[in-house]
Amino acid sequence: MAENKISTQPYKGSRDFYPEDMRLRNYIFGIWKKVCERFGYEEYDGPFIEPFEIYEAKTGDEIVNQQLYSFIDRGERKVAIRPEMTPTLARMVAQKFYELPQPIRWYSIPNLWRYEKPQRGRLREHYQLNVDIFGVDSVEADFELFLILINIMQEFGAKENMFEIKINHRELAENIYTDLGIHKKDFSELNKAIDKKYKLSEDDFEKMLKEDVKLNNGQINNIKNFFKNPYPAMQKMKTSGAAAIRHLLKLCDDSEISKFVKYDPTIIRGLDYYTGTVFELFDLNPNNIRAMSGGGRYDDLVSMFLNKKISATGFGMGDVTFTNFLQDWKLIPELKNSCEYLITLWPSQERDFYDRGMELSQKLREMGKNAEMWLDSDTKIDKQLKYADKKGINNVIIIGENELKNNEATVKNLETREQKTLPLKKFLTDLK
Amino acid sequence: MAENKISTQPYKGSRDFYPEDMRLRNYIFGIWKKVCERFGYEEYDGPFIEPFEIYEAKTGDEIVNQQLYSFIDRGERKVAIRPEMTPTLARMVAQKFYELPQPIRWYSIPNLWRYEKPQRGRLREHYQLNVDIFGVDSVEADFELFLILINIMQEFGAKENMFEIKINHRELAENIYTDLGIHKKDFSELNKAIDKKYKLSEDDFEKMLKEDVKLNNGQINNIKNFFKNPYPAMQKMKTSGAAAIRHLLKLCDDSEISKFVKYDPTIIRGLDYYTGTVFELFDLNPNNIRAMSGGGRYDDLVSMFLNKKISATGFGMGDVTFTNFLQDWKLIPELKNSCEYLITLWPSQERDFYDRGMELSQKLREMGKNAEMWLDSDTKIDKQLKYADKKGINNVIIIGENELKNNEATVKNLETREQKTLPLKKFLTDLK
Repeated sequence: MAENKISTQPYKGSRDFYPEDMRLRNYIFGIWKKVCERFGYEEYDGPFIEPFEIYEAKTGDEIVNQQLYSFIDRGERKVAIRPEMTPTLARMVAQKFYELPQPIRWYSIPNLWRYEKPQRGRLREHYQLNVDIFGVDSVEADFELFLILINIMQEFGAKENMFEIKINHRELAENIYTDLGIHKKDFSELNKAIDKKYKLSEDDFEKMLKEDVKLNNGQINNIKNFFKNPYPAMQKMKTSGAAAIRHLLKLCDDSEISKFVKYDPTIIRGLDYYTGTVFELFDLNPNNIRAMSGGGRYDDLVSMFLNKKISATGFGMGDVTFTNFLQDWKLIPELKNSCEYLITLWPSQERDFYDRGMELSQKLREMGKNAEMWLDSDTKIDKQLKYADKKGINNVIIIGENELKNNEATVKNLETREQKTLPLKKFLTDLK
Repeated sequence: MAENKISTQPYKGSRDFYPEDMRLRNYIFGIWKKVCERFGYEEYDGPFIEPFEIYEAKTGDEIVNQQLYSFIDRGERKVAIRPEMTPTLARMVAQKFYELPQPIRWYSIPNLWRYEKPQRGRLREHYQLNVDIFGVDSVEADFELFLILINIMQEFGAKENMFEIKINHRELAENIYTDLGIHKKDFSELNKAIDKKYKLSEDDFEKMLKEDVKLNNGQINNIKNFFKNPYPAMQKMKTSGAAAIRHLLKLCDDSEISKFVKYDPTIIRGLDYYTGTVFELFDLNPNNIRAMSGGGRYDDLVSMFLNKKISATGFGMGDVTFTNFLQDWKLIPELKNSCEYLITLWPSQERDFYDRGMELSQKLREMGKNAEMWLDSDTKIDKQLKYADKKGINNVIIIGENELKNNEATVKNLETREQKTLPLKKFLTDLK
């Protein structure tokens, strides 16, 4: 028989959240939400399915051609399951742009899907905190995003030695490439190589510059020298991109977050819509090489929908790499079942036990206590206690023959193993 | 130009949740969660995409053939976007059946998709609270579900005249059909007709019995007489299904929820997997004719995955019809922005205003206050106040030339229109 059964495994690269997994998810989302609201951000959400075309133009070839879950619906519309939230966000902002008070500070925690090879830190679905500001041109907005990111990390108990933010600027990077003698037509391939640099040996990086980007030896040497000590080139550049990143670095240096932020020209970001500052948050644990969060300025995205240029900056932070971070640094506290009481049911066919137990359960619930009642009248009390123990319910209430007769309850604390029998009335008054 | 832009509308039948919509969603979900946890239920979740086959057998023809969003993934797997949560739940229970403490009391609020014609109370996507118990055979479990449903309704402020639960039993219904002279082969068509009865005139119902179910006049008369007064047939039936529903009705009658629950043989439920008690929650407002919630016992579903019969009962409650209910009965309270303070930025190129404002913002945040800071140094204070007003931020803080010099802040309450200037230190101490 068993071989005819349907598999109980979830779809490849996706997750089942059992109650203990869900507690962790709720813990993480809870802190994400709390910190975002602390900075005045409001929560929004959009649909899981979007028209295909909103990803087509700006989301990037790799995602659209290799990773997108897209299909034709029963009404012949080409649609896609969202692989990222920013196009939905831009669509929503464009839709009500003239009604919405500005600046717009919004956050969301959507579930996103990409057809990837499942591996550590990367699944086919993940949840991603998205935090964005629309309508602030200046780098003070990017600085605020850094404050939020670092506040989130600190709220989880992360310390200075555990993470850092690396920043770059798209325009500055292009200015520098030009100064290094690279032609504009090679920027895109060069960015691809630089984006992979952190995973490559020096030789392999050089090989990529030669074979894929097709740079000559002089250009390659310039690139290599630049990466050895990138600060001077950034400091002396006289363009608005360079000025912006210097201003941003100054804001960081003058504040309590200075130790967490540094300029790093290897930060590229894969998405096509970035126009200015880009940044990524890294785990300093070498086991966790992938960025936990990334973002930047995308002042042009809304123009897909609206004949208007709207400045925007934001970041995303995925739950899979972030959970790895918390696990590796042992930052996950014990997360308990929210249920505080199990009202056991005395094994008896007499209806009174059930009625008394139900009455007490309802009283506890009315008092705002979470209380579960045992319903099967055939189960030994011992087994009910074991159940409470296994589920992490701290208090067990027993109403046996004597307790029923005397209007009493025996209350057992499974942590301290303390047990006492007391009048029901007193038990309830003590709780208040 | 504008005609080349991509549409800003969400995919047909789906919703954008702007911050004010999200506040309502969070309000509803918050109460759903609170009540479920009050009864000891733990939250779980599963993936948005599932293998097609878990819906194929038991979810029902209409959903699978006409409404399911299914497609072939890039690895040639046939998959579907979940149209309901119960098959995922059964899969998860089967997967860890031997490790999970039992009974299993779980809830979830998944987003579900069905390709339907969008209309009032029905969209292509909706959120649905799912509440289920596995491992309790007796109707005390169904009774507990009613308590939860009614507790939810009361928590939202719903009164006796606003809603009711109607119950039936699959086996009892079949026993009664047999007694009325209907053949087993006609049960399925008869159920379809009865399921639509509430939308039909008496004549149209009769026509359906004749033409679709193909009953003769004697059978039709029996059915009509039965529906005129169904209680006696239920009361006298001597089968386990009848005994179960009488026991359940007795539990209700003996409790505080008696006024909300009644036997109604028109309750059928469309899903194929129900095996015993079935029930639906109705709005008593005639504008809102559709059931807001439905459920029942499905003791056989887990056997799709596991060679084992596991008793189960549960219900689902969709957010679209439920929101209509709250709106029509005017049960939605004012839901405010969680941000309490706007720290304005004095329009000046002097950096000190920004620095002082940022320092104060961070202090407020450290004290657990939600505070937003204005970042653009070119905006008139009046415009900043209007922004706060429009967003429902109650308190505005102004640090102008004098305040900066004297270490003060002007605090304005936008509700009471009160305004005072006081030393920064005193402002912060008063807050504590």
